[in-house]
Amino acid sequence: MLSKAVVKYIKSLQIKKYRYQHQAFVVEGGKSVLELLRSDFGLEHLFITEPFYREHTSSFPKGLAFDVVTEEELVKAGTFSSNNAALAVAKMRQLPTLEVKPSDLVIALDDVRDPGNLGTIIRIADWYGIQTVVCSETCADFYNAKVISATMGSFTRVQVHYLDLSAWLQQHTKDTKIYGASLAGENLHQMQLKPEGIVVLGNEANGIRPEVAAQVNQLIKIPAFGQAESLNVATATAIIMDNFRRNS
Amino acid sequence: MLSKAVVKYIKSLQIKKYRYQHQAFVVEGGKSVLELLRSDFGLEHLFITEPFYREHTSSFPKGLAFDVVTEEELVKAGTFSSNNAALAVAKMRQLPTLEVKPSDLVIALDDVRDPGNLGTIIRIADWYGIQTVVCSETCADFYNAKVISATMGSFTRVQVHYLDLSAWLQQHTKDTKIYGASLAGENLHQMQLKPEGIVVLGNEANGIRPEVAAQVNQLIKIPAFGQAESLNVATATAIIMDNFRRNS
Repeated sequence: MLSKAVVKYIKSLQIKKYRYQHQAFVVEGGKSVLELLRSDFGLEHLFITEPFYREHTSSFPKGLAFDVVTEEELVKAGTFSSNNAALAVAKMRQLPTLEVKPSDLVIALDDVRDPGNLGTIIRIADWYGIQTVVCSETCADFYNAKVISATMGSFTRVQVHYLDLSAWLQQHTKDTKIYGASLAGENLHQMQLKPEGIVVLGNEANGIRPEVAAQVNQLIKIPAFGQAESLNVATATAIIMDNFRRNS
Repeated sequence: MLSKAVVKYIKSLQIKKYRYQHQAFVVEGGKSVLELLRSDFGLEHLFITEPFYREHTSSFPKGLAFDVVTEEELVKAGTFSSNNAALAVAKMRQLPTLEVKPSDLVIALDDVRDPGNLGTIIRIADWYGIQTVVCSETCADFYNAKVISATMGSFTRVQVHYLDLSAWLQQHTKDTKIYGASLAGENLHQMQLKPEGIVVLGNEANGIRPEVAAQVNQLIKIPAFGQAESLNVATATAIIMDNFRRNS
């Protein structure tokens, strides 16, 4: 059973301040929890339903501690409207020092505030074999439950760093190609792209801020064939990464 | 001011049954409402804030009737958590008969249930100049407020038809190329794609149903370079359309 105190603790982790105070975050849903168990994240609590237990016993590490609870308890504690599988409280982990080699392909996000967008971008990064996503400090928080959920498990494989984006890019302008997505950029379909460099994408409504845009040395655009004025930032990230990787 | 009766009417349109009974739907947010005013959809009600009125008077058709209300009233009546611009109740419109020429490029969705995904796909269709999206009857409803909102105005330009997808595809298997997105498909990056045909995408969790897959004559896949097991259906649609259009 999930005690009142534990439910209260899990709920408190919906707030960023408490996540960082406790250095812990919540992972919901069967797929995400299974990926968590296969990763090197530490585990504080694991709550699963009986059917989930029966189906996945073989994937559980030896000596794993967990509680069997009902679907109703999972819904009550978590943010999902239905969850017949699992909920875990995991420990945040220390990222290795951020290093970018000229041959790396990196996604940099400037002020991407929607958690669903950030999570979807992390999933896209994982699909295209990109290990590093760099975020301005105003982006959605990586450990937000909606971000974790939208990554569909990719949160275990992609490293997301928060920093002063403009200052960080400035350190790389000399030795690294810095691309920026912009409606005023060069047509992606007509470029010979090598899958390396840093690709900057901007805020959902306002694009890349001027101080960040000042560090970009190649603007790129996704060519339009119809009348929509823009694309969602996660959609744009996916199309751009596909264009970079097609010459891999 | 928004009367209680009107608020109740607007709220009722959150439910599909009442939308179809009244043949009306709700459009929220400045960008979407401005696109609505430029379209051929009929208008039942228009509520705007004073700042929105001042900024956009020049875009309003002559003789347009509207009420000036507060931001709080818009939030109370609608589904947005903030809306300092506009909310409209529009009339559904009759679509022209669905006709697919062999030279058209069409998106077909099988059981895509998430309204945000459907709306994003409509926006992508509009970006890539695709006028027709065909949906199985189990897809999210086009007039759902979340669908309309996610299209960012593209709902005015893309025609979305609901039908028995398997039966409809069967009529086209002889004269039209029918592609299906599948992890078992041919690598998109290595194909010479002509921008014509019907591209089928399946349910978020389960992919294309067997009876629909039976009508597909070419499976295609987006090549993966990392470890994510899948992509969101809207993300996949965007990447596939970009691959089709790059040879336009």
